[in-house]
Amino acid sequence: MIKQIKHKIKLNATDCVKCFVFKLFLSNFHLSNLIFCFVFNLIYHSMILKKLSYFLILCCLPMNSFSGTGYDLWLQYNKISNQEIKTTYVKNFTGMYVSGTSPTLKIAGDELKRAYKGFFEKQLNETNDFSENTLFLSVRENLPKEISVSLQENFNEINSEGFIIKKIKYKNQNFTVITGKTDVGVLYGTFRYLREMQQHNDISNLHIVDSPKIQKRLLNHWDNLDRTVERGYAGFSIWDWHQLPGLIKPEYKDYARANASIGINGTVLTNVNANALVLTPQYIEKVKALAEVFRPYGIQVYLTARFSAPIESGDLKTADPLDEGVRNWWKAKADEIYGEIPDFGGFLVKADSEGQPGPFEYNRTHVDGANMLAEAVAPHNGIIMWRAFVYSEEDPDDRAKQAYDQFVPYDGDFAENVLVQVKNGPIDFQPREPFHPMFGAMPDTPLMMEFQITQEYLGFSSHLVFLPKLFQEVLEEDTYAKGENTTVAKVIDGTASNKKLTGIAGVANIGTAKNWTGHTFGQANWYGFGRLAWDPYLESEVIAEEWLKTTFSTEEEFVKPMKDLLIESREAVVNYMTPIGLHHIMATSHHYGPGPWVDNLGRPDWNPVYYHKADSAGVGFDRTASGSDALSQYAEPIRKKYSDLETIPQKYLLWFHHVGWDHKLENGKTLWANIALKYQEGVEQVEAMAITWKTMEAYVNKEQFEEVTMLLEIQLKEAKWWRDACLTYFGEFSQMELPEGVPEPQHDLKYYKSLKFPFAPGIRPSWN
Amino acid sequence: MIKQIKHKIKLNATDCVKCFVFKLFLSNFHLSNLIFCFVFNLIYHSMILKKLSYFLILCCLPMNSFSGTGYDLWLQYNKISNQEIKTTYVKNFTGMYVSGTSPTLKIAGDELKRAYKGFFEKQLNETNDFSENTLFLSVRENLPKEISVSLQENFNEINSEGFIIKKIKYKNQNFTVITGKTDVGVLYGTFRYLREMQQHNDISNLHIVDSPKIQKRLLNHWDNLDRTVERGYAGFSIWDWHQLPGLIKPEYKDYARANASIGINGTVLTNVNANALVLTPQYIEKVKALAEVFRPYGIQVYLTARFSAPIESGDLKTADPLDEGVRNWWKAKADEIYGEIPDFGGFLVKADSEGQPGPFEYNRTHVDGANMLAEAVAPHNGIIMWRAFVYSEEDPDDRAKQAYDQFVPYDGDFAENVLVQVKNGPIDFQPREPFHPMFGAMPDTPLMMEFQITQEYLGFSSHLVFLPKLFQEVLEEDTYAKGENTTVAKVIDGTASNKKLTGIAGVANIGTAKNWTGHTFGQANWYGFGRLAWDPYLESEVIAEEWLKTTFSTEEEFVKPMKDLLIESREAVVNYMTPIGLHHIMATSHHYGPGPWVDNLGRPDWNPVYYHKADSAGVGFDRTASGSDALSQYAEPIRKKYSDLETIPQKYLLWFHHVGWDHKLENGKTLWANIALKYQEGVEQVEAMAITWKTMEAYVNKEQFEEVTMLLEIQLKEAKWWRDACLTYFGEFSQMELPEGVPEPQHDLKYYKSLKFPFAPGIRPSWN
Repeated sequence: MIKQIKHKIKLNATDCVKCFVFKLFLSNFHLSNLIFCFVFNLIYHSMILKKLSYFLILCCLPMNSFSGTGYDLWLQYNKISNQEIKTTYVKNFTGMYVSGTSPTLKIAGDELKRAYKGFFEKQLNETNDFSENTLFLSVRENLPKEISVSLQENFNEINSEGFIIKKIKYKNQNFTVITGKTDVGVLYGTFRYLREMQQHNDISNLHIVDSPKIQKRLLNHWDNLDRTVERGYAGFSIWDWHQLPGLIKPEYKDYARANASIGINGTVLTNVNANALVLTPQYIEKVKALAEVFRPYGIQVYLTARFSAPIESGDLKTADPLDEGVRNWWKAKADEIYGEIPDFGGFLVKADSEGQPGPFEYNRTHVDGANMLAEAVAPHNGIIMWRAFVYSEEDPDDRAKQAYDQFVPYDGDFAENVLVQVKNGPIDFQPREPFHPMFGAMPDTPLMMEFQITQEYLGFSSHLVFLPKLFQEVLEEDTYAKGENTTVAKVIDGTASNKKLTGIAGVANIGTAKNWTGHTFGQANWYGFGRLAWDPYLESEVIAEEWLKTTFSTEEEFVKPMKDLLIESREAVVNYMTPIGLHHIMATSHHYGPGPWVDNLGRPDWNPVYYHKADSAGVGFDRTASGSDALSQYAEPIRKKYSDLETIPQKYLLWFHHVGWDHKLENGKTLWANIALKYQEGVEQVEAMAITWKTMEAYVNKEQFEEVTMLLEIQLKEAKWWRDACLTYFGEFSQMELPEGVPEPQHDLKYYKSLKFPFAPGIRPSWN
Repeated sequence: MIKQIKHKIKLNATDCVKCFVFKLFLSNFHLSNLIFCFVFNLIYHSMILKKLSYFLILCCLPMNSFSGTGYDLWLQYNKISNQEIKTTYVKNFTGMYVSGTSPTLKIAGDELKRAYKGFFEKQLNETNDFSENTLFLSVRENLPKEISVSLQENFNEINSEGFIIKKIKYKNQNFTVITGKTDVGVLYGTFRYLREMQQHNDISNLHIVDSPKIQKRLLNHWDNLDRTVERGYAGFSIWDWHQLPGLIKPEYKDYARANASIGINGTVLTNVNANALVLTPQYIEKVKALAEVFRPYGIQVYLTARFSAPIESGDLKTADPLDEGVRNWWKAKADEIYGEIPDFGGFLVKADSEGQPGPFEYNRTHVDGANMLAEAVAPHNGIIMWRAFVYSEEDPDDRAKQAYDQFVPYDGDFAENVLVQVKNGPIDFQPREPFHPMFGAMPDTPLMMEFQITQEYLGFSSHLVFLPKLFQEVLEEDTYAKGENTTVAKVIDGTASNKKLTGIAGVANIGTAKNWTGHTFGQANWYGFGRLAWDPYLESEVIAEEWLKTTFSTEEEFVKPMKDLLIESREAVVNYMTPIGLHHIMATSHHYGPGPWVDNLGRPDWNPVYYHKADSAGVGFDRTASGSDALSQYAEPIRKKYSDLETIPQKYLLWFHHVGWDHKLENGKTLWANIALKYQEGVEQVEAMAITWKTMEAYVNKEQFEEVTMLLEIQLKEAKWWRDACLTYFGEFSQMELPEGVPEPQHDLKYYKSLKFPFAPGIRPSWN
């Protein structure tokens, strides 16, 4: 019968897909069949490769239409078609022995089984003994003594969340062990092991010893209780509060799994513009249900605490942090929450900022407020993350200076379990900002980094912008706080000042979108944030490559050009939105599109004109000693270098200086010409991205290909809109001609000003 | 080698799954192998059945995690495992010949291919000639003359959207033809043909001739431009206005496909509480993009028109329908829209109701308003759907009477292209209402039915309630308008008064939920609405059976008990919420949970106490001649029958009568005892539903099984809450003991009153 089949296959090339299935089947049975398969493979290799993706899609089609959604994120365990890789993989990974029965280890084991099924289309053998090439999972305390001792040195290198992956020999058997000091360490190691395979790396002799460098690696969800998401562009909140705790959606587990796979170990469920209702029993029960889903994945839940909660959610008359009743209210509230959720993480607080209540109302300080809450959660090992994003409409001083002014005097005064959470830059998540000066100025306070993964100022979920490149730029900046090479990364990971408590937060870009993030490439920013939270010294190029391989394809023809595209995408958005240090010139409130002309908002520091200060003489915010002197908040030699028009990096020029339109920059061209050319360059970069993407059809699924194609068209249209609107507006001041290569804008300024988007997504709900 | 394999299979029962794959593979090659497979099948049948679903899930797992979502709705083309059925199907359906190249016919062909792949796991042959058992698709005008003539009689029976499916003989070949007068008729026939196969019906000698009985079969989306959905419980709006027209999401096509499969031919994209912005060029461009996706599926788009749009979206000073400028503004607006969307359907209008603007402000009538708009769209064959859901806070009369009073005097005055859209009952989408008296009172006006598919008053998306049972009850009611047997269905489909224009609308329960409707069983209500829109005389039992088979399984052990469950589910919700004619006693604003005590809302007719009028003497709204006399709006013999406490159907008792607590009902028990026992019965019905569902694990996928299990637990909890809260409240008036079998409520009234749900989903946004 086999002969008959072989004959048929040879006669009919279109049957080669079936042949492939046949081989898969046979390969489950006997090694000799594998060889038989291999011969076939050589003959039909090229045909099979082409048909394969088609077949896999077709195979799932009748089951459901979701195969193209990207719901599985970077956890694609695509079938390994390369026979050489497959053969060595199968040889080195013949089965699995999980020592232990904790929910976390079960998750690790299930992940391995799922991946194995994906890679090899067969079941992974589970065993209960040590045998050749069986992957062995165990926490340290369950390791056979001999193994434990042999790994002693590696164990000394890792912390409680770290892991060791090592090929060892024990009882005359060679196999790989994945171990750590805790279950979650083993889980992290498991995801790491699988990532190696996803990337088709050699697994035959692994020796990886790794630990997270930052302790608290958190997502911040700006999710409201009505499921709107402030600055959310991927649909609405994945937390279905109404149906919790009764309905546990599969998404909750999948969310936890995705986060665990990149080492994220905490999530703040609610918006920093907080609602006190979440602290009531009705909601604590719901939070508990989520905490129980997340726990085995090593993820703690946190909530935002509205400072006035004792009044709104309790029945006190004051929220004064020094009031005994208030202190007791918070202690009782903490006890109540921890009674339900023993591993509750703690509170994130936005106080005395943008209308949020805080200690100032009672003439108290940030320290009073933070330490009062810290006291309440301390007995339960909870932490307080107190945000430094504060600026006052009553303070006429440069907004960029205010957080520093408010916080730095209190360096060293915060309780042990308080982290001060500082945005990466001194304004607000712009396409480019210099690092926040607080990072160089509070050696005695643990500072937590707040990055924004959701693209509030970077094209929402329509623009492809690879943010790890932005994050890396910030982390690598030198604060000079303790001499040269005191990078922001070292401040954050605690090594600069020997901090015990460290943290990093990313404002999530996750929503109900079928692919979680709206734009498929938004997934890369979630992924990249997680990877940098684990290791803030990672290169964004490495992250890009990992993500591309684990999400789409390991093919060099795909990975190489797409990596370049990702890396360049960040500079593109800077160019077409805010080149040469321009910032916060987005349209009002929703921040969608250009609005450099906006000058009528309630607060001066909400108006774009406040930030660019364009006039007939020039453009830019003078933050040198002749201006707001915000530069004085930085250490030397930054101050000196940035004060000088000739030595300041051009990318920060208009952030710190008001510069004449005809001032000549390094390239010998005027500032005006440089601005115009940068806008044009940004547009051209997007054009190039679209062209590159068009050649990638073979490597991604149809739905994703079409989606990204359409989104790049939107991005290009909007990049041109930015260029044309900004150059039209600034041109009215400069009164200079556009340089060669920059097309005349299509419309006049009146047109650009007339565009209104009252329902642009992600805006603040009115009840807040 | 085969022997070796067989041996191995016999040795190892767990390999039976692999064996199954093997058989699938072999069955693609040769009939003799099929026999070989069949033998295996007999031996391993039981084992294989159990493993099969497990295997199928596993098979797709590495591809994506969405296999359990229910995204594919009732369009499941599950593999046909029954060999007998499969053999006859494959014999009768050997290939496909599509005559024509229109987008609609391409969709029909693609659907057949997709289904074929699902049913038989192989590609459907496409041919270009008539051969034995090749399915032939063609519109009438492309049929060979001989076929066309032979079907003459059938063509006379169908309208432009109808279809004929018939096994014919032509050129000595026997095959099935699917035809109609239009492409969309052929598409409807195709879906019907596939539905026969999904249900495992005999297809060897089909002869189906069918046409929709109602012309305009519409979904009404109460979707706002910010993507919130008024009374939406399945996430948020699927219309991503912000990214339209640039991003065409796959959901748009899948939405159209699902609707076309059940014959829905129009969709009103926006909320009846309308925003004039949707009529601006910025949004018309977006609407156009959707219209282009929907067009080949036979679906027209409609918009809601805010009556004051000439002021808000234009720059007129008035919206007076008799003002020349206003009339011209609407004509120009219609021309503008039709210029972009030539098959635009028309406008749906909510005017002078619940704060919406309308003609009353200018002392004009509904007729003035509707006819002014009708005039604007008439040249383009557009229609106006003018809602009759009107009631005034200034009118002290029974709310149930007001729509009738406002509209009936104008019977015959509306323009030809106006439909008056009337809710099924005179109040507002309650679990049970008598039919709206307007259906029996406007013979010279085309009345369009408005059903609510979204479960505003029926447990949101947490409760399993099969609404076709409710719809059928309404459609079967006899209005006696033209003598006995003038059913609501006959009013709606135009046969009662020979109407040219007919329509039916369902307020959609669709959102961004991964399964579209939140509760998987909400899909049944979408499906059922579509089927009843096509044929308002369909039995809900038939619809239930169709839906269960096309969504889950054709197994009798599943279909029979689940059909009973669906049918009973509607009476269950009536029992545990509003038995014996009680109505509108839901909590305020969001309508979540019981709130019979609410008496403090701005308008009397928004308060539950207005509707139940409980006092120490009794409970119920006297709508007889001694009360509001709403009963006089109905024809005889309804008036007489319902006036009498002894002859009124018990289900409507408290709708029309204020009845003493100790009044004895038919069963000899007091009203109070009957109310209490009905609440208890409702709870017990939900308990029974949960028990039945638990036995269905084998027939549905894991995710859906778990989801529905959890939702039934929520439903049970809420049914008990309803029972306990209502009996506690009404008990304070009746001062009577609970009858045997009804447990004492767990809490006191103060507790039930204290429950607050400020973020219950689906509420009206504040900007409205």
